Amino acid sequence: MTRKYQARIYVTLRPSVLDPAGTAVQSGLQHMGYDNVEQVRIGKYVELTLTAADETAARQQLDRVCDQLLANPVIENYRFELTESATLNSGVTA
Amino acid sequence: MTRKYQARIYVTLRPSVLDPAGTAVQSGLQHMGYDNVEQVRIGKYVELTLTAADETAARQQLDRVCDQLLANPVIENYRFELTESATLNSGVTA
Repeated sequence: MTRKYQARIYVTLRPSVLDPAGTAVQSGLQHMGYDNVEQVRIGKYVELTLTAADETAARQQLDRVCDQLLANPVIENYRFELTESATLNSGVTA
Repeated sequence: MTRKYQARIYVTLRPSVLDPAGTAVQSGLQHMGYDNVEQVRIGKYVELTLTAADETAARQQLDRVCDQLLANPVIENYRFELTESATLNSGVTA
């Protein structure tokens, strides 16, 4: 039996890493009159669905996917949320 | 009295809009052997802090900020979460 999961992945720059895009947005906001906004940091938000035998397997795969492709572990952190969206019955996997 | 809020803003492409970056990531994952991953969509994740008189004022300002700068309402949706991070006592605002 294979389960289907919906993943929401948040990739953010490590706090010690400068964020020029965030600084540019903050500067733009201040020019627009929003001078009460601070500490703007910009990251990536990725949604995907994946199938896995169970939640543990899904989390392990997502860790690999984030480490290898979605995030640069040298300068970025990531975290993700998993929700089971449906259960698929297939005769192939046990 | 001014309150300080931490905002987490999620900007995503509308479902009807094609996402070439998401397609590229999905294709990359499949080349890496992760062929159980589907429906990859890539968005932006923005963290910022702002000061406001109350939560209603903060939400109204965030709506304007998202509409005017962070999201393109024609092709993107946004949502945000607010958490009050501290209360600042200042003699200037009532």
